[in-house]
Amino acid sequence: MAEAGIRTRLLQSLKTILAPQYILATEEQLKPFECDGLSVYRELPMLAVLPCNTGEVCSILALCHELGVPVVTRGAGTGLSAGAKPHPQGLLLVLTRLNRILGIDPDAMTARVQPGVRNLAISEAASVHGLFYAPDPSSQIACSIGGNIAENAGGVHCLKYGLTVHNVLQLHGFNARGEPVTVGSGGLDSAGFNLQPLIIGSEGMLMVVTEITVKLLPLPQEVEVMLAAFDSVDAAGQAVSDIIAAGVIPGGLEMMDNNAICAAEDYAHAGYPRDAAAILLIEIDGSPANVQEQLQATREVLKHSGATSLKVAGSPEERALYWKGRKSAFPAVGRISPDYYCMDGTIPRSALAGVLNYIDSLSREYGFAVANVFHAGDGNLHPLILFDANIEGQLEAVEEMGGRILEKCIEVGGTITGEHGVGLEKIRQMPLQFTDAEIAQFHRVKEALDPDNLLNPGKNIPLLKHCQEYRALAADIEPNRLLPRLGQGQ
Amino acid sequence: MAEAGIRTRLLQSLKTILAPQYILATEEQLKPFECDGLSVYRELPMLAVLPCNTGEVCSILALCHELGVPVVTRGAGTGLSAGAKPHPQGLLLVLTRLNRILGIDPDAMTARVQPGVRNLAISEAASVHGLFYAPDPSSQIACSIGGNIAENAGGVHCLKYGLTVHNVLQLHGFNARGEPVTVGSGGLDSAGFNLQPLIIGSEGMLMVVTEITVKLLPLPQEVEVMLAAFDSVDAAGQAVSDIIAAGVIPGGLEMMDNNAICAAEDYAHAGYPRDAAAILLIEIDGSPANVQEQLQATREVLKHSGATSLKVAGSPEERALYWKGRKSAFPAVGRISPDYYCMDGTIPRSALAGVLNYIDSLSREYGFAVANVFHAGDGNLHPLILFDANIEGQLEAVEEMGGRILEKCIEVGGTITGEHGVGLEKIRQMPLQFTDAEIAQFHRVKEALDPDNLLNPGKNIPLLKHCQEYRALAADIEPNRLLPRLGQGQ
Repeated sequence: MAEAGIRTRLLQSLKTILAPQYILATEEQLKPFECDGLSVYRELPMLAVLPCNTGEVCSILALCHELGVPVVTRGAGTGLSAGAKPHPQGLLLVLTRLNRILGIDPDAMTARVQPGVRNLAISEAASVHGLFYAPDPSSQIACSIGGNIAENAGGVHCLKYGLTVHNVLQLHGFNARGEPVTVGSGGLDSAGFNLQPLIIGSEGMLMVVTEITVKLLPLPQEVEVMLAAFDSVDAAGQAVSDIIAAGVIPGGLEMMDNNAICAAEDYAHAGYPRDAAAILLIEIDGSPANVQEQLQATREVLKHSGATSLKVAGSPEERALYWKGRKSAFPAVGRISPDYYCMDGTIPRSALAGVLNYIDSLSREYGFAVANVFHAGDGNLHPLILFDANIEGQLEAVEEMGGRILEKCIEVGGTITGEHGVGLEKIRQMPLQFTDAEIAQFHRVKEALDPDNLLNPGKNIPLLKHCQEYRALAADIEPNRLLPRLGQGQ
Repeated sequence: MAEAGIRTRLLQSLKTILAPQYILATEEQLKPFECDGLSVYRELPMLAVLPCNTGEVCSILALCHELGVPVVTRGAGTGLSAGAKPHPQGLLLVLTRLNRILGIDPDAMTARVQPGVRNLAISEAASVHGLFYAPDPSSQIACSIGGNIAENAGGVHCLKYGLTVHNVLQLHGFNARGEPVTVGSGGLDSAGFNLQPLIIGSEGMLMVVTEITVKLLPLPQEVEVMLAAFDSVDAAGQAVSDIIAAGVIPGGLEMMDNNAICAAEDYAHAGYPRDAAAILLIEIDGSPANVQEQLQATREVLKHSGATSLKVAGSPEERALYWKGRKSAFPAVGRISPDYYCMDGTIPRSALAGVLNYIDSLSREYGFAVANVFHAGDGNLHPLILFDANIEGQLEAVEEMGGRILEKCIEVGGTITGEHGVGLEKIRQMPLQFTDAEIAQFHRVKEALDPDNLLNPGKNIPLLKHCQEYRALAADIEPNRLLPRLGQGQ
């Protein structure tokens, strides 16, 4: 069927499922949904829908399966790897109206929520029971738990509490045919193959999730935040390893370099030392006695690691201010540069200093300033490369530089994603991280769970086999665009 | 090719790969490998091999792929669900000689080990760095980490530290063709689809693992163990929920009922109160101040929960004795009954009392005594049903009773496995836990990663679709025996 014919049929049938105001069809209506948080990739979907319940989601998926229409699922659109970029011949399935907290079981310490629930809303609702949901991406005030599932989101507390995948028990939803599927169980283990963690981070390519059971944790009784300054990035990196080697597992262990410190300080007036080469923000949480014990141990370590200054926030307000500086680092950097490109790679802690030096050398080679803000404890880097997209060639050069940073992450035994996912952004680096056999295996898993390749096709898994082939593509061509599926025509 | 011809060709080719003493071919040689820890399922493999390095494993797999010979991988053989039962027309791949600890990185807090390394040996080697490997099945002195991976093993510390799947970062190994495959990464996140947790618990059906990177944790500075007695199982169950609701996460939280208490006491003289209806063993670990704090909180909770007595082990010796009673509960029960059948289901903590009462009613209905020993904190039940296999009909009746316990676990929102896996033991209950679409999905995942169905075929995933079909099979027929693969002849 011709594309226009499919669009007409899809639109007609959607009107039998949803109220007309929840079907978006005009360019004006679709424009706000053309990209997620990585706005260099943008495209209008054929149509978009905003269902309000699982019955509607089920019917929509069955309909798209019947018509062979691709479906891209979207949450709050805060993703940073273009995982939710619309498909031009596809339906955009926006799940923000599935935003109910279905139940909190304080005894089992779990919450059942719909995918459109905001990350922070879970902790807010759980707080009356003295509980919270641990993963806390910087966007937690806006991002949805469904999007967190799609990208295996992290946050400042990952080192101690893990990523999304470590904090979810069970997922209910639908496969591409609209058939109900449940993965995981109410317990720690589950029978058969363990598909639940496979779904988490799969960027909506294996099923559409409509209900999530998350684990909740007891709110720490006490929290302290320590700010340590260093006159070299190397010393700060070493201190991170030393703290953990001392047996302290901080709730959060964040590092910022001088560019990030100055930008954040100008923006948030957090009380950061502008003259420091690097700072560490160390959050210790737990019971009162435990916090004091760990604080003391950390203090000892930092003295020996060459910290030039050391402060413990003296009040809840000061603590909030320390975090405000960190959490606003991205917008703060946005003020000092027309554009910035946020990378997300993970490396072994022991490689921190070496990789930061490499980034510094790239910064000089390409002539782009870099601000480093990252989850140091778990080796999750977020270099922000500052550039101006209006200057011809800068975007391409930044993408190349970013690619080299990711390649370095792989070289030192790390990985190209820490918490943002692969989406379209990192497709070009995938063949460097994985062998042909491993990539073929990803395609077979995709085919097993979505045989018609309808769920978010073209994301996450490369369609070309080698980095060289991607390099031969012009830099401004979307990496998986118009490429045949491995081993078959399209 | 006729079976005898295949066996001859396989044997000849194996001799080009392995020294002759590591190829087992006679009935006498093969007999010790006829079953794992669930010995009601037993069968001789066609041949068995004991390779000593990954190169040999690779060649063996490539050879079996060429000849179309099924491969069942086996570790120490301590599994409890027949996951390692040999295939009569298959090769048994015994990995106990791949038993090297390849490296410990105290900075990254990881260890790289081969699959034949014993679980306890990892913690022993890590202890010089002040670290340990958390999952600790009762068989930890004997069981291998490869087998732990295959069955997603747990242990008494799961509540706080998770199952095997929560403590592994990366797996290297081979697919059924003998091609090298790596899943997971050195970091928390990994790019592409998250296949590593899918492999864990897949009972050797998706790849053969030859190298494992596990997470290590700092050894707790202090450990205390508390023994609380109750005059009803219900009260003990409620106390479990109350402890956790109070924000205490014990390192271990174990429950034993009166039958288990008396058997363990006779065997280990652990100092358990014989007149108690149930006891809880509560281990609190952490820093000294933290342990005292949590111990005090637990004491308060137990007073209000109706504990009839409460003792904290006064010395390391007494602590070891408390645990000796618990850890020897299985052999202790073995002394009071000719045979016992150990179940392994998981239920929400809130359902504990109800399910224990149901087990009690089944015990009276079938006339079999039951001793309950289990990981109460995470709801992982281990009812031991006492019987005599030499009395005709008892084995079948016990299996039926066990099946009804698992069905009850599903009914209350739990799952049929906590840490032992499905293997052959629980195949009959799988169609009750999963829908037809979900089981079909398992088969498609199996086909995606092992298209020729050579890796441990017939385990874990049911070949029939409905419990009724399995019920129509005679009880003494192995559940997946001689059954066609879903959707195809064989």
